[in-house]
Amino acid sequence: MREYNTEILSVGTELLLGHITNTDARDVSEMLSKIGVNVRWHTVVGDNPARLAACVEIAKGRADVIITTGGLGPTCDDLTKQVLAESFGLRLTENAAEREGLYEYIRTGKDFTPNNFSQALLPEGCSVFHNRWGTAPGCAFEAEGKIVLMLPGPPNECVPMFREYAVPYLKKLSEEQIVSHSIRIFGIGESAVDQIFAEEMNAMRNPSMAPYAKECDCLLQVTAKAKSEAEAEAMMAPVIAHVKERLGDVVYGIDVESIEEAVLPLLRERGLSFAAAESCTGGDVARRITEIPGASAVFAGGCVTYTNEVKFRLLGIDIDLIEENGAVSEPVARLMAERVRAITGADIGLGVTGLAGPDGDGVHEVGTVFVSMAVEGETFVRELHLGAFRTRSFIRRMAGNHLYDMMRRWLTGLKL
Amino acid sequence: MREYNTEILSVGTELLLGHITNTDARDVSEMLSKIGVNVRWHTVVGDNPARLAACVEIAKGRADVIITTGGLGPTCDDLTKQVLAESFGLRLTENAAEREGLYEYIRTGKDFTPNNFSQALLPEGCSVFHNRWGTAPGCAFEAEGKIVLMLPGPPNECVPMFREYAVPYLKKLSEEQIVSHSIRIFGIGESAVDQIFAEEMNAMRNPSMAPYAKECDCLLQVTAKAKSEAEAEAMMAPVIAHVKERLGDVVYGIDVESIEEAVLPLLRERGLSFAAAESCTGGDVARRITEIPGASAVFAGGCVTYTNEVKFRLLGIDIDLIEENGAVSEPVARLMAERVRAITGADIGLGVTGLAGPDGDGVHEVGTVFVSMAVEGETFVRELHLGAFRTRSFIRRMAGNHLYDMMRRWLTGLKL
Repeated sequence: MREYNTEILSVGTELLLGHITNTDARDVSEMLSKIGVNVRWHTVVGDNPARLAACVEIAKGRADVIITTGGLGPTCDDLTKQVLAESFGLRLTENAAEREGLYEYIRTGKDFTPNNFSQALLPEGCSVFHNRWGTAPGCAFEAEGKIVLMLPGPPNECVPMFREYAVPYLKKLSEEQIVSHSIRIFGIGESAVDQIFAEEMNAMRNPSMAPYAKECDCLLQVTAKAKSEAEAEAMMAPVIAHVKERLGDVVYGIDVESIEEAVLPLLRERGLSFAAAESCTGGDVARRITEIPGASAVFAGGCVTYTNEVKFRLLGIDIDLIEENGAVSEPVARLMAERVRAITGADIGLGVTGLAGPDGDGVHEVGTVFVSMAVEGETFVRELHLGAFRTRSFIRRMAGNHLYDMMRRWLTGLKL
Repeated sequence: MREYNTEILSVGTELLLGHITNTDARDVSEMLSKIGVNVRWHTVVGDNPARLAACVEIAKGRADVIITTGGLGPTCDDLTKQVLAESFGLRLTENAAEREGLYEYIRTGKDFTPNNFSQALLPEGCSVFHNRWGTAPGCAFEAEGKIVLMLPGPPNECVPMFREYAVPYLKKLSEEQIVSHSIRIFGIGESAVDQIFAEEMNAMRNPSMAPYAKECDCLLQVTAKAKSEAEAEAMMAPVIAHVKERLGDVVYGIDVESIEEAVLPLLRERGLSFAAAESCTGGDVARRITEIPGASAVFAGGCVTYTNEVKFRLLGIDIDLIEENGAVSEPVARLMAERVRAITGADIGLGVTGLAGPDGDGVHEVGTVFVSMAVEGETFVRELHLGAFRTRSFIRRMAGNHLYDMMRRWLTGLKL
């Protein structure tokens, strides 16, 4: 396959002011890496025709594929189509179907002004990407040996349009299929994973493998190129099996986004539910599972017991016991898991109490967290020291990862 | 003031693969816009010396200030210092204090390998930014008429280091002070705000004002340049007063990051606490307040009642009443707020039940949410229709915003 060096050129002053994050570049890059397209550069430039034109010239000089995001809307700030068309010597012509579509949009009564019709102007001869998620169409054209794709900026338009139109468009350019899997790991860090596989990874060409750090866990990305998807899968299967064999039970899933996403089906298959009593995580353990559609099949609910009084009122944990042991202690964590399990009637009860910082309690170092899991007849408690130098949100997320990991291990019969 | 056109050059293949989002560029841009530095370009390039060197040449050709993020760590992938030093003809020399600091780090027993000492190599004559949040120091130097700043990539190192070292460094270059305030708004959208102030904003030069959309609310950014901070503040005061007067009670705060951040001090001043009973938000209302250090002064705790059974078990809400009215209903929302208030002993009880999607319940449209607030002697309920086309996370966040807004309004004596 020819290597398509690709540049993503995002247009929008709001990106340069830091008002929004360039998630389009991340999401488009992720989709491209999965089909084996090499993204070499991301560029962001403001709504300024001269600076945009200069960036387009740079992109033409170094990239084979130029993907723009943003600047396709109706306001005078939106200049991407004009500047790109001019750079490639193309005229903008009105697309009848798109103009008709814009008429339809008016009839539905949404905000609309005459300059909205400028969105139906597109470079002559382009492939049109109709926008079902908003009004501005995207497009693709080939000129001067370059492939240009233009997408609107709002992520809820850019991402589905890229998936639906741009990915198939780019796939057609290649005779090879590229397939990729991510092996998700919790319990050892990226540098340890790197050390284990460094030599093998250096020697691998196709399939290839590379480690990446996520916020509180890490992954190995395995990618193969072949004539068919089936062939690519067959090339990767022994690699994935080897990694799972070598790393053992720290591998929590393939192609999942988080431990909770890996745990949800394990619970569902077994018809089990869980509940959580949270102190330092403050509701984040519950939030994470309920962020996934269908969580109600496995998640009963829980308590956020942020004060000692509420630990007594909601969970019936004796105030004297809390004062004697401290709120951040093994006995309190144990009781939180047991009580929330009993009160909600869930099969598994989780508890978490600790110091997320920045302030300490004069007894424990920031980052000290007790996580617990109560099941029929048994309660497990882990004492964690997540690092006094860590941020509050890291400590909260890592504590949650340990809870989901405890459930995963128990559900699959692993050592706790 | 001389205009410093600035480019942020982020180095890291993981950004181009879409494994992580370039939040550094966003955060650094936001801090720069507040001190009046114009960010004109963001560039991302991988861990490739030739491509990085080419990007540095482009940046030197168009920018006055070049800020790099990433690529300062000890592994062979981390090439930023070498490439930048070479481009400006500077040698890398070992910084004794930084080397000593790395020795200290080893003594604390953390993972460490000899190649970590490469982090003490810095361009000759640079100002060193000592990294208290990690190991790789940053630095700044001036050469060939350009100002170069280098920061490490991990956001929890890059952001505090930029705030602590880079902002004061850049401020010293200017004789003018630039001060900025954001007026945070919930209840009307960005386009409505834009329409109200469009003419005024077009006519304003210094101070200037611009509207920005955030995920579930919006803001007006007011910025002034003057000889002193006091003078800049004096120029902005009447503008801010005018906006507050014109928009009225939809302004929820100045220079706060979220409604919960505005509500926390209102509760603390009055010595009041709240608790939350959450269904569709699944713990997110609790998570949001507890993300802020010091939340325990105002947040007692709460329940996540994700199933009808748990609504009964934790809150004592009658199953018959739930089945009769539906879990997504005004009476259930009302009881959730009242019961969680009674059970926790908090001064204010919040309740939220609704459909966050993507699946409906056959009765209500996705996006239908009832939010409620119980105070001594009175309970308020709002029925929301947040839009069937909205994402699950938008609906959950927006429902939470309404709850925090209800508290804010009640606490400040506004119409509910």
